[in-house]
Amino acid sequence: MKALVFDGPGRSDWRDTPDPGIQDAADAIVRVEATTICGTDLHILAGDVPEVAPGTVLGHEAVGEVVEVGAAVRGIRPGDRVLVSCISACGRCRYCKESAYGQCVGGGGWILGHLIDGTQAEYVRVPFADMSLHPLPGAVPAKEAVLLSDIFPTSYEVGVLNGGVRPGDTVAVVGCGPVGLAAIATAQFFAPARIIAVDLAAVRLEAAKRLGAEATATVQESEALVADLTGGAGADVVIEAVGAPESFELCTRMVRPGGRLANVGVHGRPATLHLEHLWSRNLTIRTGLVDTYSTPTLLRMLTDRRLPADALVTHTFELGRMEEAYEIFARAADTGALKVVLGEPEHEAVALHTGERT
Amino acid sequence: MKALVFDGPGRSDWRDTPDPGIQDAADAIVRVEATTICGTDLHILAGDVPEVAPGTVLGHEAVGEVVEVGAAVRGIRPGDRVLVSCISACGRCRYCKESAYGQCVGGGGWILGHLIDGTQAEYVRVPFADMSLHPLPGAVPAKEAVLLSDIFPTSYEVGVLNGGVRPGDTVAVVGCGPVGLAAIATAQFFAPARIIAVDLAAVRLEAAKRLGAEATATVQESEALVADLTGGAGADVVIEAVGAPESFELCTRMVRPGGRLANVGVHGRPATLHLEHLWSRNLTIRTGLVDTYSTPTLLRMLTDRRLPADALVTHTFELGRMEEAYEIFARAADTGALKVVLGEPEHEAVALHTGERT
Repeated sequence: MKALVFDGPGRSDWRDTPDPGIQDAADAIVRVEATTICGTDLHILAGDVPEVAPGTVLGHEAVGEVVEVGAAVRGIRPGDRVLVSCISACGRCRYCKESAYGQCVGGGGWILGHLIDGTQAEYVRVPFADMSLHPLPGAVPAKEAVLLSDIFPTSYEVGVLNGGVRPGDTVAVVGCGPVGLAAIATAQFFAPARIIAVDLAAVRLEAAKRLGAEATATVQESEALVADLTGGAGADVVIEAVGAPESFELCTRMVRPGGRLANVGVHGRPATLHLEHLWSRNLTIRTGLVDTYSTPTLLRMLTDRRLPADALVTHTFELGRMEEAYEIFARAADTGALKVVLGEPEHEAVALHTGERT
Repeated sequence: MKALVFDGPGRSDWRDTPDPGIQDAADAIVRVEATTICGTDLHILAGDVPEVAPGTVLGHEAVGEVVEVGAAVRGIRPGDRVLVSCISACGRCRYCKESAYGQCVGGGGWILGHLIDGTQAEYVRVPFADMSLHPLPGAVPAKEAVLLSDIFPTSYEVGVLNGGVRPGDTVAVVGCGPVGLAAIATAQFFAPARIIAVDLAAVRLEAAKRLGAEATATVQESEALVADLTGGAGADVVIEAVGAPESFELCTRMVRPGGRLANVGVHGRPATLHLEHLWSRNLTIRTGLVDTYSTPTLLRMLTDRRLPADALVTHTFELGRMEEAYEIFARAADTGALKVVLGEPEHEAVALHTGERT
């Protein structure tokens, strides 16, 4: 088969590689119908995730068709159309038993395209298939469903649910990349009074408005805007979706006493926590890797047309144009790329902000 | 009356000062039966709390008898024996309406011995008397009840409840001063599997054992002990009761994935938050000033003899020996002082670790 192979920092190659096979009785083999690229994949290519060994196939998001299952798989059969979760789960360890699948210590967690071969390929082996695959209704477009492998559960669980968004809340979302935008979309399930979107890029703030943000602000004007819209108190919930110390620290200044700060961003450096101000403010800060316990719920919302996944897909490519897709995604500031989906037979690269759709 | 007056950093004086009077219809005047000294009072004397104006009477903890009430007071009458809460509450602002009395923006919050005259005096004026005083059963000793002005609700709300202690949990308490010890005592309401107490001082670790800690560790050995007792996972709940960046950072290394870190310590400097490790660990960090919403519950527990308040009182003095009591409390490392209570007619200064009691 063809797959995108990581050859060490700065190098990857779409090339022939051996087909995956069943290695464990709980495995399934999935033919990839659609996959996508995550900011984390760029971090791996940059050499920021040293546990990824050269030779690993990248990618942890996919929709596909099951072509083979191991002897122990009970709930999934060949021919099933499935969503591949970015999190594999043994289902038996102490963390899985509490739905904390991302923390699985039984061999799961985030392993696809990380510790084992991933989804940016024609076929992928998925361990713990009964726990890690979700049957998909046929009517759901792969291009939309594939956003439920990672970014929708991540933004919903680690941002919206960990942030405890409640009716009437003022919610600030700092960082309007795909994950921040997905948080803006799913925060609205809880009827917040308003969502304030913060980003450096005007094109992303425009997307935030289309997805339901009431107000938008650049980083420089954001603190004043939040204060202004909340009578000086601060936001009830602040969602960090950047992954930089400066952004995290901005969030700690935006949240009201008694408020919640949900960190979704993937960080590479420590932040300064100003406990000399924050110790008395009844602040709740939560971090998290996605667990994907919400995936069945989000799939129902997608089927009911209540999840604007389509609005986050700016570009689609045939699977074989993987390297071109990475180029477009890596230059998002220029290309306006949000999510770039590969696999479906569309060819046109269309930017969201032009208003056109594939 | 006599009172301990703050005369600016490093200076205080037990001297004659005008009797307090009703200034607002919601006020009450309380004759002080017992008061105590808090670590925060030492911070004020050290000049770390610049909003305390010279001339302010110190102290925010007391038990006493109501001698006068304003025209708007409904639930408290002259002659009532009461606990004075360290938190005054307007009862009407958005924070009070959510029981976040410590964040009151209607003129309450922590004001006694801070923004207005406090309790280290023969008489004290208490604003918002209906919300800020708790009637006391006559049988409860003042020496014990006075610990419910601040340290018991602080350790219980900001440590145990914010930390979400649950049956079977491993709880680490870092810092075994009075507040840390009170957290050890109240954490046991929730049937944790074990409590691990961490401190620099052997005498405090001995007190922690007497109050129910299963294991104790010095700071140096604490990380290894927690790892050893939890199969390498880390503690379910870690309570920071020191108020130093080093201590907070130690707590972030002791907590398991999915665990809770409750900060009770009063901090004067920022800490480093290692988000590059913590972003993916499903961590919950909470900070807080006490709200005292739990005071009625804790009073019932005290009346039922389920709150070992007595074990935290190492020294008692007559009210007029205030300066001597401060001296004993400030040199806790030498004197073994935990809580130093003033007012009752006991005279003997007895250290807890000798096993003697007043």
